[in-house]
Amino acid sequence: MSTTKLFEYIDKHQNDYVAQLKEIVAIPSVSADASYRPEVNRMGEWFKAKLEKLGASTKRVDPGKQLLNGQPLQLPPVILATYGNDPAKKTILLYGHYDVQPALIEDGWATDPWVLTEDDSGRLFGRGSTDDKGPVLGWLCVIAAHQALGLEVPVNLKFCLEGMEESGSEGLEKVILQEANNYFKGTDAICISDNYWLGKSKPCLTYGLRGVSYFRILIKGPGADLHSGVHGGSIHEPMTDLIHLMSRLVLPDGTILVPGILDDVAPLTKEEEETYKNLDFSLSDYHDSVGAATTIHSSEKATLMHRWRYPALSLHGIEGAFSSPGAKTVIPSKVQGKFSIRTVPDQDPERITRIVTEHIEAEFRKLGSKNACEVECLHHGRSWKSSPDHWNYLAGAKAVKEVYGVDPDMTREGGSIPVTLTFQDALQKNVLLLPMGACDDGAHSINEKLDRKNFIQGIKLMGAYLHQVAEIK
Amino acid sequence: MSTTKLFEYIDKHQNDYVAQLKEIVAIPSVSADASYRPEVNRMGEWFKAKLEKLGASTKRVDPGKQLLNGQPLQLPPVILATYGNDPAKKTILLYGHYDVQPALIEDGWATDPWVLTEDDSGRLFGRGSTDDKGPVLGWLCVIAAHQALGLEVPVNLKFCLEGMEESGSEGLEKVILQEANNYFKGTDAICISDNYWLGKSKPCLTYGLRGVSYFRILIKGPGADLHSGVHGGSIHEPMTDLIHLMSRLVLPDGTILVPGILDDVAPLTKEEEETYKNLDFSLSDYHDSVGAATTIHSSEKATLMHRWRYPALSLHGIEGAFSSPGAKTVIPSKVQGKFSIRTVPDQDPERITRIVTEHIEAEFRKLGSKNACEVECLHHGRSWKSSPDHWNYLAGAKAVKEVYGVDPDMTREGGSIPVTLTFQDALQKNVLLLPMGACDDGAHSINEKLDRKNFIQGIKLMGAYLHQVAEIK
Repeated sequence: MSTTKLFEYIDKHQNDYVAQLKEIVAIPSVSADASYRPEVNRMGEWFKAKLEKLGASTKRVDPGKQLLNGQPLQLPPVILATYGNDPAKKTILLYGHYDVQPALIEDGWATDPWVLTEDDSGRLFGRGSTDDKGPVLGWLCVIAAHQALGLEVPVNLKFCLEGMEESGSEGLEKVILQEANNYFKGTDAICISDNYWLGKSKPCLTYGLRGVSYFRILIKGPGADLHSGVHGGSIHEPMTDLIHLMSRLVLPDGTILVPGILDDVAPLTKEEEETYKNLDFSLSDYHDSVGAATTIHSSEKATLMHRWRYPALSLHGIEGAFSSPGAKTVIPSKVQGKFSIRTVPDQDPERITRIVTEHIEAEFRKLGSKNACEVECLHHGRSWKSSPDHWNYLAGAKAVKEVYGVDPDMTREGGSIPVTLTFQDALQKNVLLLPMGACDDGAHSINEKLDRKNFIQGIKLMGAYLHQVAEIK
Repeated sequence: MSTTKLFEYIDKHQNDYVAQLKEIVAIPSVSADASYRPEVNRMGEWFKAKLEKLGASTKRVDPGKQLLNGQPLQLPPVILATYGNDPAKKTILLYGHYDVQPALIEDGWATDPWVLTEDDSGRLFGRGSTDDKGPVLGWLCVIAAHQALGLEVPVNLKFCLEGMEESGSEGLEKVILQEANNYFKGTDAICISDNYWLGKSKPCLTYGLRGVSYFRILIKGPGADLHSGVHGGSIHEPMTDLIHLMSRLVLPDGTILVPGILDDVAPLTKEEEETYKNLDFSLSDYHDSVGAATTIHSSEKATLMHRWRYPALSLHGIEGAFSSPGAKTVIPSKVQGKFSIRTVPDQDPERITRIVTEHIEAEFRKLGSKNACEVECLHHGRSWKSSPDHWNYLAGAKAVKEVYGVDPDMTREGGSIPVTLTFQDALQKNVLLLPMGACDDGAHSINEKLDRKNFIQGIKLMGAYLHQVAEIK
């Protein structure tokens, strides 16, 4: 393997890579704001041109229009690319996104969010630095480095770059399904670099994500909002019913009160339990990151298990009740409680909807109220769990060892990255999440950053991963 | 007594009274909107001029400035007037207000809200017709009728007319306290015509109002809102704690769960219980008025008792949680639950605050949460109960019998009319609420109306009341 030369080259040209990152951070490709849409498109075209310059063949797919604030708006293109077409090589599909979260210096940024700025510790501040321009650029740097060294890229690559990830990936699923047996045909595995290390110092491979089932409970009573002075005491108040129902969903210690909710949770194996040892995670760091020591569990292991492998129920709020500052003496006539359950393997969303609905309806009957109650699952997405024994993961783990000298943490995440499941379902291939950035990068916050070390070692990691994929059985 | 001639005169001049009401409904004296302030002032001046023309001496009190949308704005004047000064006569202080609720024809009015319009059933539609221009005008018509007939008004009258009643009576309390031993000196009793009959056909005297204690529960957890996917299951969520606390305040059947809350409620006497018989109130009418048959109690008596003489606790809403349409997967870091208790004789607001706070703090300790909890009473106003045996009420009841041929319903109301208590406390005199309009007048709604019958009979009632006051011991 020729990664020694590759790594040397990457180290030597790191300032060039940082300069390129600076060039693309300067394009404010904010997908949430219609007025920035030309910049999003410009960013997509930049990557398309770059890929073409590297010799890739590209395809621009227009996913159609979205409705933004009631106005139809052309969605940014999905940029597809193919680099290499050797039937003797494995083919890896790389996904990333070129849009970013909004950012205004007035929000509290210490530096201009659109000017990549490095501090004394090598932190590269700028919107999109870590999410997800740095990682996407990383793959291109790997190809360019091979070309400069006269080395062959050891696998065929396909790219799928979208410009709507920060706005719900609108239009992407349709494109993936449509291209599954076309442009994406021949893919052996998928690799996505769009999440983060568990801590600040140790790399990880991520093999699982929770799903989500989002519910509302609607309670309808009187024909209009009533004055609580005039009517309080004589009427079944919808808020009282709703608060009682919401209190029967989850306890303050996180216990979900829906009967049977844990029946389908995959049992914890010895093997899985082992992966929780020696993780780069401490409760005190976690307390720092959430700004309070209000964690439920007293051990790191239990805390992570309840974020990764057990379901959780969160009460988000109430629509239709008084929610402003101050005091208002209203009896709301119709209120909707919103809550969601983070679901895990092997929970089935259809069964979750059924048992949650049955539970709430049974609790409502116990209330003895004359109001009306409806339960609805507004949307659900399944949990995702990959096979960490797959060669895709073994290649990733070997690459980490090669670059960082350690075995990676094997992590899961509590949230959803729906594209992961879409790729797995559409292509029926293994998906690896291979993060570049650290837990404190602040992807959606002010002062988003990517450490120079993570960026440069990350480019090496990507190169090493492709070589390991090529070698592995 | 010379009321026979008085009543004949009033009947004969009823179109003149309706024409005067039309003249003042045309002045859009909306106190809530700064742009209408000149109209509010014009309305105040109209009454002042009218009182002077009748021979009253008047005084204009400027209560100072208010802040409306951050802008200082001169408050409308409080118009004081004195009619008659005979030490041999009783002195009655009359309160009313000359401002009105906002009204736009686009809100759904069938007719122009500023043009008093009579339909075939004799309903006089127009903003302010019943609340409170009709009743205030009624007192002036009584004086004018006496003068036209060459009759003496049998009592001394004082007037207190404000222009901010629909906007919290800002500035009024200060004026009342300041004038208690000055302009209002010598007052023997107070009469206010600014509420409504219990039903549509039978007059009432109102002798009680509930108070209100408004609370918030604040739960603080993490330093910032968190993503429920990433953190759900590992953190004590403020919403979960708050929902549990709110569920321990009141049951769906209205039972308040604060220990000791009923200890100070005045016991129900046989005498009081008698007053609930034969009231002009039916559950089916009540269901129609609230738009649903979701009442808790199965009898009229219990329904009214729980609106009038027992406390009630209403959960109003939550500040800081997700309250918009749609779905958002947030763990709010800081939430505030708002609720209020309608208080009754002989509950003491200070004790209510203490037992509510103790109850919530005790329940919070049971939750075993690491979050922080604070309870605060945002404001409170005491309940009010007059002495229905006082001569002021006996005079009112005799006047009702004289005009309507029936004994009035003796009613209370669930809401607060703070000025009632302010007058009673400041002057230490009996206050009678003597309504003119019916329960379906729609005081704050579209298509506000005053029935011609209620208006004209109401003027007679006011006249009869003054004569009964003069005669009674």
